[in-house]
Amino acid sequence: MYRIALWGFGAMGSGIARNIISKVDLKLVGVHDSRVDYVGKDVGTLLGLEECGVKINGNPMEMIESSNPDLVVIATNSFVSVVKDQIASVVKKGVNVITIAEQMAHPFFTHPEEAEELHNLAVRHGVTILGTGVNPGFVLDTLVIALTGAALNVKKIRAARINDLSPFGPTVMETQGVGTSKEAFEKGIADGSIVGHIGFEQSIYMIAEAMGWTIDRIEQERKPIISNVLRETKYVKVEPGMVAGCNHTAKAYMGDECVIELEHPQQVKPELEKVDTGDYIWIEGNPDLSLCIKPEIPGGKGTIAVATNMIPAVIEADAGLLSMSDLPIPRALIGELYK
Amino acid sequence: MYRIALWGFGAMGSGIARNIISKVDLKLVGVHDSRVDYVGKDVGTLLGLEECGVKINGNPMEMIESSNPDLVVIATNSFVSVVKDQIASVVKKGVNVITIAEQMAHPFFTHPEEAEELHNLAVRHGVTILGTGVNPGFVLDTLVIALTGAALNVKKIRAARINDLSPFGPTVMETQGVGTSKEAFEKGIADGSIVGHIGFEQSIYMIAEAMGWTIDRIEQERKPIISNVLRETKYVKVEPGMVAGCNHTAKAYMGDECVIELEHPQQVKPELEKVDTGDYIWIEGNPDLSLCIKPEIPGGKGTIAVATNMIPAVIEADAGLLSMSDLPIPRALIGELYK
Repeated sequence: MYRIALWGFGAMGSGIARNIISKVDLKLVGVHDSRVDYVGKDVGTLLGLEECGVKINGNPMEMIESSNPDLVVIATNSFVSVVKDQIASVVKKGVNVITIAEQMAHPFFTHPEEAEELHNLAVRHGVTILGTGVNPGFVLDTLVIALTGAALNVKKIRAARINDLSPFGPTVMETQGVGTSKEAFEKGIADGSIVGHIGFEQSIYMIAEAMGWTIDRIEQERKPIISNVLRETKYVKVEPGMVAGCNHTAKAYMGDECVIELEHPQQVKPELEKVDTGDYIWIEGNPDLSLCIKPEIPGGKGTIAVATNMIPAVIEADAGLLSMSDLPIPRALIGELYK
Repeated sequence: MYRIALWGFGAMGSGIARNIISKVDLKLVGVHDSRVDYVGKDVGTLLGLEECGVKINGNPMEMIESSNPDLVVIATNSFVSVVKDQIASVVKKGVNVITIAEQMAHPFFTHPEEAEELHNLAVRHGVTILGTGVNPGFVLDTLVIALTGAALNVKKIRAARINDLSPFGPTVMETQGVGTSKEAFEKGIADGSIVGHIGFEQSIYMIAEAMGWTIDRIEQERKPIISNVLRETKYVKVEPGMVAGCNHTAKAYMGDECVIELEHPQQVKPELEKVDTGDYIWIEGNPDLSLCIKPEIPGGKGTIAVATNMIPAVIEADAGLLSMSDLPIPRALIGELYK
């Protein structure tokens, strides 16, 4: 039984806590969150379950020292600049790390110095670091790479994740520009307040490294998805002519040839304009291969699942900063159902 | 650059030879086949390529000793009883093995004694053995396991590979019962001359082991696919009312609950009765997940691709008898296209 601790108890962190508690081979031993109204409360109670004896600790290092985990899941933030020190502080305690920070899914090309520093630190302390989640971490990279395994050769890879943002709250609506005008969207892209998807570069470099391809440049575009109809969710109302989401695409080139093309249009209520949600992978090569998952793997559940399911593989892996393509194929851990 | 040799130069073996020659990081150094009209001939010439300097050697041990390979691909036969001694003889030379023998894809439950013996032998000689192919080895096991990685929990797994046998020759037509009457089909099943798919048990046990499930029993059925129309290929003519193929299914139970259900109807010209070929995976759990690959991954190319693409991972893996679920996710090796 592996002892697991959690750094961050937000939407994803609390979902991961619930999932860890349900697993036969995992034991939740510690949780850190800095919100004062959470500190000292029982994690089980906060999750609406029975008390589990683990209380939210306001100090991450104290939490790790007192709970003695085999691995800490860090679910705090998307960016290397923020999670790097958090990861390093856990590694220095000799503890393995999984983080759902999108930029950590494959930071070797986007953040080479930080990646090297973390890799060396992990090797020195004999532990493993992995960044993962549903995307980056699974749909637009791991699954793409796995499918190429059945191809004699690959000329070009195209993949799309077409999802529905309707369940998400105000923060996501704002960072995707949902409900704004076309002009406000363009302004938000320019000033960085509308970001689209985080993780295209990581997915592209993970695929390219697995294929042995050297990428010369990546071009990204973020375009507003203008609604033709009224789209309304609990959190946002999109009038016709306004922005229903962000169509974020990325193209990676070797010389003048586009070899990887990823699309991730994210919007509310896509079904109102007959947009089929789904995850799609097209391999152009010998043979051509076309894969779809319909509807798409749900984002929240998918990230919670992948982050939890990779725990044993990360603990058992060689030391270092790894990516999903270094590890055995993911798999669901046995839970309550078949205890 | 890895030095690769090949044992068996039939339809699959010759395809693997051609694929190895095309790969940047692999070098074909030796080939054994026992057919006298092949022995001494240049492999490149036999493949319709330019001469490659490797001649077919009629003696497998001599071929291995003279070519000094890092790994031998064994493409001779489907059954453990036949390939076991071939594998052992290569391992005893301190050389890694990949075999496309279906029963070797996960022999730990179907052939526990042979598996243990081969595992111990591999460990003692510091080399790795892997059985793989498109199926078993990829579609109905590796890909299924990978998809469960995005699930919080899994209640039941159903998967189907619906393919077209039209390109295959007389041997496959006979072992699948294509063109026979319903009565001849039943008789062929009873006397073992019609076998259907080889590998269901291996796929099931590979999935079950990854899920942490203990399978109590497996039930298999082989039913004739009776054609309602005339179906004709280069090798066979199926009149209406005759057998167009074999619908082979397997169900695996934990207690009374069917937890894994695999279907593999194989027939000629399925499109004439509007049967869509494809590879399908349905995960019943949280969330439900539904994946399809359409058309299906072609059997021949898929097996050649997977067997070749796994070569570096097998050479670099820890010693022992492994299965696809122990290794990093498969990926296409770089070939001529992007040299």
